[in-house]
Amino acid sequence: MNQGTGGDTTPVTDEEIFTGHEGGKLGVAATRPISDPRDLSIAYTPGVAKVSRAIAENARLAERYTWADRLVAVVSDGTAVLGLGDIGASASLPVMEGKSVLFKTFGGLDSIPLVLDTTDVDEIVETLVRLRPSFGAVNLEDISAPRCFELEDKLKEALDCPVMHDDQHGTAIVALAALRGANLVLDRDITTERVVISGAGAAGVACAKILQAAGVADVTVLDSKGIIHPGRPGLNPVKEALAATTNSAGLRGGLADALRGADVFLGLSGATIDETLLREMADDSIVFALSNPDPEVHPEVAAKYASIVATGRSDFPNQINNVLAFPGVFRGALDAGARAITENMKLAAADAIVAVAQDDLGPDRIVPSPLDPRVAPEVAAAVAKAAEADGVTA
Amino acid sequence: MNQGTGGDTTPVTDEEIFTGHEGGKLGVAATRPISDPRDLSIAYTPGVAKVSRAIAENARLAERYTWADRLVAVVSDGTAVLGLGDIGASASLPVMEGKSVLFKTFGGLDSIPLVLDTTDVDEIVETLVRLRPSFGAVNLEDISAPRCFELEDKLKEALDCPVMHDDQHGTAIVALAALRGANLVLDRDITTERVVISGAGAAGVACAKILQAAGVADVTVLDSKGIIHPGRPGLNPVKEALAATTNSAGLRGGLADALRGADVFLGLSGATIDETLLREMADDSIVFALSNPDPEVHPEVAAKYASIVATGRSDFPNQINNVLAFPGVFRGALDAGARAITENMKLAAADAIVAVAQDDLGPDRIVPSPLDPRVAPEVAAAVAKAAEADGVTA
Repeated sequence: MNQGTGGDTTPVTDEEIFTGHEGGKLGVAATRPISDPRDLSIAYTPGVAKVSRAIAENARLAERYTWADRLVAVVSDGTAVLGLGDIGASASLPVMEGKSVLFKTFGGLDSIPLVLDTTDVDEIVETLVRLRPSFGAVNLEDISAPRCFELEDKLKEALDCPVMHDDQHGTAIVALAALRGANLVLDRDITTERVVISGAGAAGVACAKILQAAGVADVTVLDSKGIIHPGRPGLNPVKEALAATTNSAGLRGGLADALRGADVFLGLSGATIDETLLREMADDSIVFALSNPDPEVHPEVAAKYASIVATGRSDFPNQINNVLAFPGVFRGALDAGARAITENMKLAAADAIVAVAQDDLGPDRIVPSPLDPRVAPEVAAAVAKAAEADGVTA
Repeated sequence: MNQGTGGDTTPVTDEEIFTGHEGGKLGVAATRPISDPRDLSIAYTPGVAKVSRAIAENARLAERYTWADRLVAVVSDGTAVLGLGDIGASASLPVMEGKSVLFKTFGGLDSIPLVLDTTDVDEIVETLVRLRPSFGAVNLEDISAPRCFELEDKLKEALDCPVMHDDQHGTAIVALAALRGANLVLDRDITTERVVISGAGAAGVACAKILQAAGVADVTVLDSKGIIHPGRPGLNPVKEALAATTNSAGLRGGLADALRGADVFLGLSGATIDETLLREMADDSIVFALSNPDPEVHPEVAAKYASIVATGRSDFPNQINNVLAFPGVFRGALDAGARAITENMKLAAADAIVAVAQDDLGPDRIVPSPLDPRVAPEVAAAVAKAAEADGVTA
């Protein structure tokens, strides 16, 4: 597998994209072929009855003799699809199929897209509870904030299996890994940095939380109305919680006020920013402009002011892509028989990504390539170990 | 592919069966590999956004650019699994995985098992309505009678896609095909025969209906309490409907009363019968003892009295197996873009199975082998044609 951003660098055409989606991107396959009557009587009647009876007598045997315990349900209601917003379940399906392709390619995991024609949180939870015997883990995807927070919380409560909203935690894990990588390059300590996060949606909230869990004391978050601080009118419960735990300097105002003297800018907002704001950041600043497909600031422009720049784009160095995290996180959780995905498992995933990058670190190489095949197995092993340490394995 | 019952004929061992289920029988696969950054940006971000946007603007494009419109949901609540009864969703999963393997092997169709932790008919309907954008057709499986009738009716009403309870209609299609094959061998007319069906569950009811649709005037059905006739106390609505339309001779009593002078015995009950009852049937009788794994009467015993004998077993001639029907039925329905599966589509499927058998007909070859690769394509073509003739295509 090509680990760099090399190869054919001409822009991808619409024709290539649509041809690459013809008939969908996913199929199922038998793990063993049916080529004679003997195969048929093993895989189906009458043989299969013995396996069903065995599971009926000992439910734990389903782990061994069905695909469910290694199967991820990739679940969306299509309310926050990439940069496209609420385009509905059916239109979100190509993204979910792509996710399943990545689960298989990088994590060796089977998964099925389940896109839902309801946006009611309780109905989504109810649906997945009813389907529980069909899968082993849930990857929530492209679900709008703040509904995504409530949905994830309720699902974790209702299901005894790993549940993770990737737009939150996948992004947070990779952002933390990249920030650790950048700090290794700059020989700085992450805990003493002043971090500004623009965007209080799924990714922004999760990034704030994981950075705090990683020991960053000074995190300030902004939404479209400016800096989030206690007492600001109209905060929803999620932002109220953020206001209570972030912004230790008690800042007020907008992005210019937040960025003055900051060490790290983490853009997760979809909005573009004025490059002159970056001039006011501290020396040797770090800029992660992660909005896709258009970063908050062009990486070449950001490089005029910052020592280290990263984006979500594959055509520039330092691509911060969730695919570095989710295949290994779910693989590790399922390998360990984890019933949940804990904070420590996410932190361990970030550390594992950094460890792979460490082999070849530099200002333009703060994270491994999204196609680096070493990443997912390392992440999986670290996540499984953390699950066992946390005592959440079955 | 081996089309006969030849090959290794030693009994399948438990070890072979359980080894053949290790890790489950199903996996997913990418239709196109991800091997460089270009592939990634086509299948996932940023390329996939164009496909999602196109579907959001024109919903019909989902047919072309996702797997949903060629995907069968194999749905069960585990209430009537093979001969095992109500063993629950998780224990039914090996059967559903086997079904998916057969859909792929014979029909070239992708499918996903969805096993449900609820047995409430309305909850099952509601769940599948919510998941509607995820699949293109529903194969109901191993759902207990009489709930299965209500569930299928409500689902057909609620979903604009093919829905078929295979234990009903798959069995009925293959039984009709076998009966036509037997009559070709005996040079007799199916419409003038007296048919006795033992069993008024999912398969018995559907067989009665399809035989009537095929022109059989004299069908008598028995349940565990004997012949179903108008005025019998305690009939549920499904059996009341049967009482009103079957048993034209107005028979009363048990199996002995029904079989006296009958041309065809169709066993779908799970109960064993006394061989002496078969002696009272008409000359050149036909006995289909379809209960699995133990036929109502051993085929070698039945052959003492009947001219043609069939079972569900692979180790005797004339194996009547649903796999002759369902892969082709769903393939034809999906190929045609059918919104439903009509009676004519089922009748066409039976005729197509007979047409394949006709090449090589004999008392021990009234249906093709379950592994005959010619069957599913022929069935699919006939079903698609019938769908168009019935005007149920999109």
